[in-house]
Amino acid sequence: MVGIGVIGYGYWGPNLVRNFAQVAGARVTAVCDQRAERRALVEQVYPSIQTYADVADLLRNPAVDAVAIATPVSSHFELALMALQAGKHVLVEKPFTATVIQAERLVEEAERRGLTLMVDHTFIFTSAVRKIKELIDNGTLGTLYYYDSVRVNLGLFQNDVNVLWDLAVHDLSIMDYLVGAMPTMVAATGMAHVPGKPENMAYLTCYFAHNLIAHFHVNWMAPVKIRQTLIGGSEKMIVYDDIEMSEKVKVYDKGIIVSESEDAVYQRHVGYRTGDMWAPRLDNIEALRIEAEHFVECVTTGRRPLSDGHAGLRVVRILEAASQSMAQRGQPIALS
Amino acid sequence: MVGIGVIGYGYWGPNLVRNFAQVAGARVTAVCDQRAERRALVEQVYPSIQTYADVADLLRNPAVDAVAIATPVSSHFELALMALQAGKHVLVEKPFTATVIQAERLVEEAERRGLTLMVDHTFIFTSAVRKIKELIDNGTLGTLYYYDSVRVNLGLFQNDVNVLWDLAVHDLSIMDYLVGAMPTMVAATGMAHVPGKPENMAYLTCYFAHNLIAHFHVNWMAPVKIRQTLIGGSEKMIVYDDIEMSEKVKVYDKGIIVSESEDAVYQRHVGYRTGDMWAPRLDNIEALRIEAEHFVECVTTGRRPLSDGHAGLRVVRILEAASQSMAQRGQPIALS
Amino acid sequence: MVGIGVIGYGYWGPNLVRNFAQVAGARVTAVCDQRAERRALVEQVYPSIQTYADVADLLRNPAVDAVAIATPVSSHFELALMALQAGKHVLVEKPFTATVIQAERLVEEAERRGLTLMVDHTFIFTSAVRKIKELIDNGTLGTLYYYDSVRVNLGLFQNDVNVLWDLAVHDLSIMDYLVGAMPTMVAATGMAHVPGKPENMAYLTCYFAHNLIAHFHVNWMAPVKIRQTLIGGSEKMIVYDDIEMSEKVKVYDKGIIVSESEDAVYQRHVGYRTGDMWAPRLDNIEALRIEAEHFVECVTTGRRPLSDGHAGLRVVRILEAASQSMAQRGQPIALS
Amino acid sequence: MVGIGVIGYGYWGPNLVRNFAQVAGARVTAVCDQRAERRALVEQVYPSIQTYADVADLLRNPAVDAVAIATPVSSHFELALMALQAGKHVLVEKPFTATVIQAERLVEEAERRGLTLMVDHTFIFTSAVRKIKELIDNGTLGTLYYYDSVRVNLGLFQNDVNVLWDLAVHDLSIMDYLVGAMPTMVAATGMAHVPGKPENMAYLTCYFAHNLIAHFHVNWMAPVKIRQTLIGGSEKMIVYDDIEMSEKVKVYDKGIIVSESEDAVYQRHVGYRTGDMWAPRLDNIEALRIEAEHFVECVTTGRRPLSDGHAGLRVVRILEAASQSMAQRGQPIALS
Repeated sequence: MVGIGVIGYGYWGPNLVRNFAQVAGARVTAVCDQRAERRALVEQVYPSIQTYADVADLLRNPAVDAVAIATPVSSHFELALMALQAGKHVLVEKPFTATVIQAERLVEEAERRGLTLMVDHTFIFTSAVRKIKELIDNGTLGTLYYYDSVRVNLGLFQNDVNVLWDLAVHDLSIMDYLVGAMPTMVAATGMAHVPGKPENMAYLTCYFAHNLIAHFHVNWMAPVKIRQTLIGGSEKMIVYDDIEMSEKVKVYDKGIIVSESEDAVYQRHVGYRTGDMWAPRLDNIEALRIEAEHFVECVTTGRRPLSDGHAGLRVVRILEAASQSMAQRGQPIALS
Repeated sequence: MVGIGVIGYGYWGPNLVRNFAQVAGARVTAVCDQRAERRALVEQVYPSIQTYADVADLLRNPAVDAVAIATPVSSHFELALMALQAGKHVLVEKPFTATVIQAERLVEEAERRGLTLMVDHTFIFTSAVRKIKELIDNGTLGTLYYYDSVRVNLGLFQNDVNVLWDLAVHDLSIMDYLVGAMPTMVAATGMAHVPGKPENMAYLTCYFAHNLIAHFHVNWMAPVKIRQTLIGGSEKMIVYDDIEMSEKVKVYDKGIIVSESEDAVYQRHVGYRTGDMWAPRLDNIEALRIEAEHFVECVTTGRRPLSDGHAGLRVVRILEAASQSMAQRGQPIALS
Repeated sequence: MVGIGVIGYGYWGPNLVRNFAQVAGARVTAVCDQRAERRALVEQVYPSIQTYADVADLLRNPAVDAVAIATPVSSHFELALMALQAGKHVLVEKPFTATVIQAERLVEEAERRGLTLMVDHTFIFTSAVRKIKELIDNGTLGTLYYYDSVRVNLGLFQNDVNVLWDLAVHDLSIMDYLVGAMPTMVAATGMAHVPGKPENMAYLTCYFAHNLIAHFHVNWMAPVKIRQTLIGGSEKMIVYDDIEMSEKVKVYDKGIIVSESEDAVYQRHVGYRTGDMWAPRLDNIEALRIEAEHFVECVTTGRRPLSDGHAGLRVVRILEAASQSMAQRGQPIALS
Repeated sequence: MVGIGVIGYGYWGPNLVRNFAQVAGARVTAVCDQRAERRALVEQVYPSIQTYADVADLLRNPAVDAVAIATPVSSHFELALMALQAGKHVLVEKPFTATVIQAERLVEEAERRGLTLMVDHTFIFTSAVRKIKELIDNGTLGTLYYYDSVRVNLGLFQNDVNVLWDLAVHDLSIMDYLVGAMPTMVAATGMAHVPGKPENMAYLTCYFAHNLIAHFHVNWMAPVKIRQTLIGGSEKMIVYDDIEMSEKVKVYDKGIIVSESEDAVYQRHVGYRTGDMWAPRLDNIEALRIEAEHFVECVTTGRRPLSDGHAGLRVVRILEAASQSMAQRGQPIALS
């Protein structure tokens, strides 16, 4: 039985508690939040959970084997490091950390101690993204050509992080999982329309080896909510629309046919191929439930999580380079 | 009565003939096409129109006061220059020319001779774009924040021009008309997925003075057809969806409210404002008909066309810089 | 302070408890459910609420001033009558009762005792329906011509009631509120595709005085979910789509223009009028919250509820006549 | 070579001429229209076609083997009868005739003379409807449960026929083709909102043997254009949306599972089945072109047309009964 301690009981913490409470082989033993009224809420709904105002106290509780950290990103590094040093397995909210150096340090600490370190890239546990992963891995899409994502709406302005760290982090974690490769270069541009606030809209491009390109539009100041990703492959193309109720993933048997012309060596004819569209059935299981089970399984068996510290580090590496590029008006930044 | 000669009777030429034929004060007197079967088609449907295989012959016809050029872009410069030198007013298909130097030369020639030179930026004559122009000009949108356009579908690969010159030219001509200012810098990235062919997808960013940013996604290899533009302003925002049948332009009374906080000088609170949505009625007049009337009026009165040679030049300037940036993987290019 | 007792803690009961718990001037004092595990759930989440297995015991609790009944429709009459006879105000889930006679009896009992009797027609408290009511009442729509509703999806088959009592009850309660008049005649047809089960799809027509017609399509066996109502008026028309996230109510300035022709007395020319579309902003307050406040206010002040027993009776009267018509393959039934 | 004469050159006639002109094995030899300006139009575009003001003259032309009648419905009977009696094969615009008796008379005349008689049920030649027919005939849908169609928009009011004859005729011809059976009973209700005009909205129900039901909503006074048909089968369900550009036909692997319960003989449990959705690729060939080829083939080979006089008669029979039912406020009418 894995004892789970949840650090931070704001917006996301209650979801973590609710889902871990339903995982066989785990139980939520402790919750920490500095705010007394949030602790009172825990005590009322879950009388059996021990509450703490101070993280150090929670970490001293031997009934806590692993912690889930759901606090603002600025505190992730310190809290995760404390937890690892206390011998606890760690699940951290996304973005993993505020800097690459912090992420590297946590990965190293966890590996040295043989502890599970996982980042809460929730979207990769949704049925939609798992289905797309399956279609990419089994070759249905063919060679990947592009990944194009739009995530915009009238959103909450943040004081401390720009829109890339708030919104693009979702898409980068999905792309990292689906593509399974690291970009070689990134470039980003954006704009801050409120003086004194970070960029509220941004465009990010990731270049990969072999002609794959990824692009992201994120925006806190759009009139409509759009959550649409186009994935182009040599054999099939996908439209993934997270707002659609019933058909989030549509697979198009469309593409191009390239034929060498006889009359000239360098002349190529490009024709179209249009075929059926197919929307696979997706199950309705809550992604966070699947993720909680995965974390508990990794803690129990030592298996490496799908979204381990390295995945979190890769996403932070892109975000850090993108912010750097954005500060230089789109100057491309190579990733080592 | 303005006599119109149409040069090129391929895809677009018949539309020009049909529309000019209905304009009061004009009549189509001549059509030129090298292909005999295209000329035969003209003769069958319009027995009164004189046909030519050679442009020089058409230009010698005194019943031709003005020409409309609907040939591939590579021939625009030569044909337009011939026509101007023959004293004819000129309407050129978009893109205006293949290079900035060509465009500048044509503008100069037309001005020196006092001839009307217009570029066929058809979209700016649609009821949707004219309505948006009205809403920007009368202050309804407030300060412009961004212009974001997506124009993608499974499209015809071209041999000679990349996707920017084929698709983004539409959006740049619309943006040029709506924004009424020239970008100070552009950056573009793209990818060619068929060896030996030009880029089939591209992302273009235009930077303006005063925090306005414009961005364009164009793609010949998308599974679905999207024609969507978001225009963000300080007071209102617009979604312009050219695929929508009945409500192409939607005006959202949405935005943000920035209030200075008392406790700290630099602290700003950003809240939301959400209100009604409004889709103005648009008339159904064919854009090309309005444009043809406008050209004839400009020829007759000497008035400067909305999409004159300077507008065409501005769009070509952006396309040329964008192609240059794309060749350098997104390196930003300043526009003088 | 109005003490609320909730009878039935299945699907809807928890929503009632949660919403009444937030109403100023009320508190939930008791919950009754025959199932021990449902009572245990209440006790865990709301330790201060008294639970009962037997309704008679709950009704004897003096801290219960009013009850909300959220049990299957077959038990509504008996439970509501018991509650009224115990001097409690009553809110009953929809459909109000299983028969007209039962509904009449409850209305009479409540009026004789001076108790508040309200039916949980939740939809009339949504911001969408309240906005439409406002547009009808202030004359924006003009004379009502028709009300056309489609409510279909792959739904739960029920054993005891046909699809009209399950789905059309929603639309009839909305129509009753919006139109403010009783149909003079109804006709319904339907089909049962599973032997031994009630009709799983049905079409219902309601005739009113003055050329107003209403029509309802309800279906448990549709491939897609549709929740769309068209309301035609002489001045404006409305599309109310409850699945739309942000623009549930669209008001179209469309209609017809009838002009008497000069050449013949009886000859009328009908032309079109097409204008803007407008989607009013709707607030996000939960309908059940507003309804709970309304019930408490009515109990406290003696005001007549918007969806009082008479409204519930009118809806049951239509449902009963419709079922009768359906059994006779669409034979129209006059309503006295 | 089949010589085609087209009678009536208004809205639809030019489409008939254009399509028959492209059919191998046929040529358009004659066009008749009473209006001189319509004949002039023919002469200008098609100098080789002989024009007539009088049908009798056209029918005397030996170069006319078959006629296509595209005049108002009130004249169909007389013109078709004249043509058959002159020994011409006949294609008649829909609705076939104004009454059942007229339709029967034409069918009889054509059969006695061994001439081809076809009704222009254009929709059954679209790629969408042909694909649905294939899916029904090969058993993909299983047993048909229902056919539900909505065809509404702000449409042209007609003086002589009600909305059923104008709009439902399309859906009835599609249903007749797809279902391949005649309803046993029909019922219709409708409303005329303009005094002196026929019904501008109507609901029509068709009952078949074996629990199949069909329903049609047609409306000239709707704020939006809807062209949606739901077809429910025991194995699969279809949504056919004629407004959709690229995916007009969607096949849902959804339905119900009925299992006999062990504990009671008459108790049945109904569960859901939800699976993939699939939108088959549809070709882009113009339906009227396919139909013209079919007519010419039938004339040449003596093959019976898909939409022969009997199909036209069946549709008129339903329309006549429906109008009768509508006049009696929905009284069901049995079809012999």
